[in-house]
Amino acid sequence: MRVAGICNTDLELQRGYYGFSGIPGHEFVGQVVAADTASLVGQRVVGEINLACGHCAACHAGLGRHCESRTVLGIVKHPGAFAEYLTLPEVNLRVVPDHVTDEQAVFVEPLAAACEILEQVNVPPGTEVAVLGNGKLGRLIAQTLSAHGAHVHVFGRHADKSQRTFAFVVDATGSPEGLRQAVSMARPRGTVVMKSTVHEEVKLDMVPVIVNEITLVGSRCGLFEPAIKLLSEGKVDTAAILAAEYPLSEAPAAFARAAERGVLKVLLHNS
Amino acid sequence: MRVAGICNTDLELQRGYYGFSGIPGHEFVGQVVAADTASLVGQRVVGEINLACGHCAACHAGLGRHCESRTVLGIVKHPGAFAEYLTLPEVNLRVVPDHVTDEQAVFVEPLAAACEILEQVNVPPGTEVAVLGNGKLGRLIAQTLSAHGAHVHVFGRHADKSQRTFAFVVDATGSPEGLRQAVSMARPRGTVVMKSTVHEEVKLDMVPVIVNEITLVGSRCGLFEPAIKLLSEGKVDTAAILAAEYPLSEAPAAFARAAERGVLKVLLHNS
Repeated sequence: MRVAGICNTDLELQRGYYGFSGIPGHEFVGQVVAADTASLVGQRVVGEINLACGHCAACHAGLGRHCESRTVLGIVKHPGAFAEYLTLPEVNLRVVPDHVTDEQAVFVEPLAAACEILEQVNVPPGTEVAVLGNGKLGRLIAQTLSAHGAHVHVFGRHADKSQRTFAFVVDATGSPEGLRQAVSMARPRGTVVMKSTVHEEVKLDMVPVIVNEITLVGSRCGLFEPAIKLLSEGKVDTAAILAAEYPLSEAPAAFARAAERGVLKVLLHNS
Repeated sequence: MRVAGICNTDLELQRGYYGFSGIPGHEFVGQVVAADTASLVGQRVVGEINLACGHCAACHAGLGRHCESRTVLGIVKHPGAFAEYLTLPEVNLRVVPDHVTDEQAVFVEPLAAACEILEQVNVPPGTEVAVLGNGKLGRLIAQTLSAHGAHVHVFGRHADKSQRTFAFVVDATGSPEGLRQAVSMARPRGTVVMKSTVHEEVKLDMVPVIVNEITLVGSRCGLFEPAIKLLSEGKVDTAAILAAEYPLSEAPAAFARAAERGVLKVLLHNS
């Protein structure tokens, strides 16, 4: 591991979600020290976090990240990246272009999650899009959709929401109230992308969803290629999302910092 | 009015939803007795229930049924069809082909709501689809999707649900539990069409929706043309959904019958 990023999911695992125990961490850039394919050794890589079986219907459809028997780096039954070394199948690795720095490359995984929106829904360039939540993920989503050509309006988690409505609304608040707000800001036949996981049952009034024929799209991990391309072309400013950097040996302090309200991305360096 | 049908929405209006007062009824076939366009007089017609302004962005997009200033026949600020006479703008009327009977034509409105699913989501012929709910709407949806070429599996509201998962699940149960079941029966990247209105807040666990990237699609009224075409081509068996017929003068008894558990479509005749 060279650099790893602390994600809200890591903080949730720490609070006991998913009954996780072990080494967390799924956002990283590393250097290959051992591999079956000799040419990979020494390369700087990022890694897709879902370890898929490769044989099931989902895998054959190119959706290994929905493989039912998958394990997930630092989340489900596979040791994570907050350590000196980690393992992943070679098929999960993507080589980082030389001109993309470690501090940029470590954003590939969350940026891929932002790019996933464009894999799932058609957002014509020029579309007005509302993004609810101005945390790490909300900002990456806003930048990604802007780079795609959308006109993005960001609304903070606790800010007064807009009275106007949008054809596309992305909820990246991580709160039930944020999701309800997102639904209320969608115009008839509009789309709400649910981008952040809420770890409690959400009470939703489905009458406006049905009467206004709103579409709610659950959205999670994405392909790494579009994210690497965005970084490689300089279309996403990761420095604007960086809050602090710690050595791996100070991981507990880094976690505490990341858990503070309003703190953006905290990185761990294996120096 | 010649024949009108009692919909679950009418029963809900009777129970006080939407604070409705006035004449309900929005499923009907009638005969024109007065119109600006002389050639319409005497014609047998059905009528789109949304009275749109014709000028707003939704109307210009061909989505008058989402016009913000619309009234709705027998539901919102426009007297309904459970009466000897009713009014609608000419633009809302569709002439019924001669070989389609009154008892078939009265199903055009709910059948249009079933057809709306195919306007909103792409269901490739041969797709396995689960329909939850075997009431009036569930059966019309099952017939419509079968006519479209899907392989439809109907699950009763209280039946044990399937352990298998589907790429498309339609919830026509009208219950929060039905919607939760529908979500649990959707495969990763699958679509749940929310076809029946639940008049209470629905508690939904959004974690599987997001992790499995499920899409939830609210779906309501549809265009009449595809529904008339299905009836005209004999592809939908409305007789199988008919429970009882009453004269308009016995409307209270008809409502009581329609409200009984498991009773299918009850019609009112203006004889």
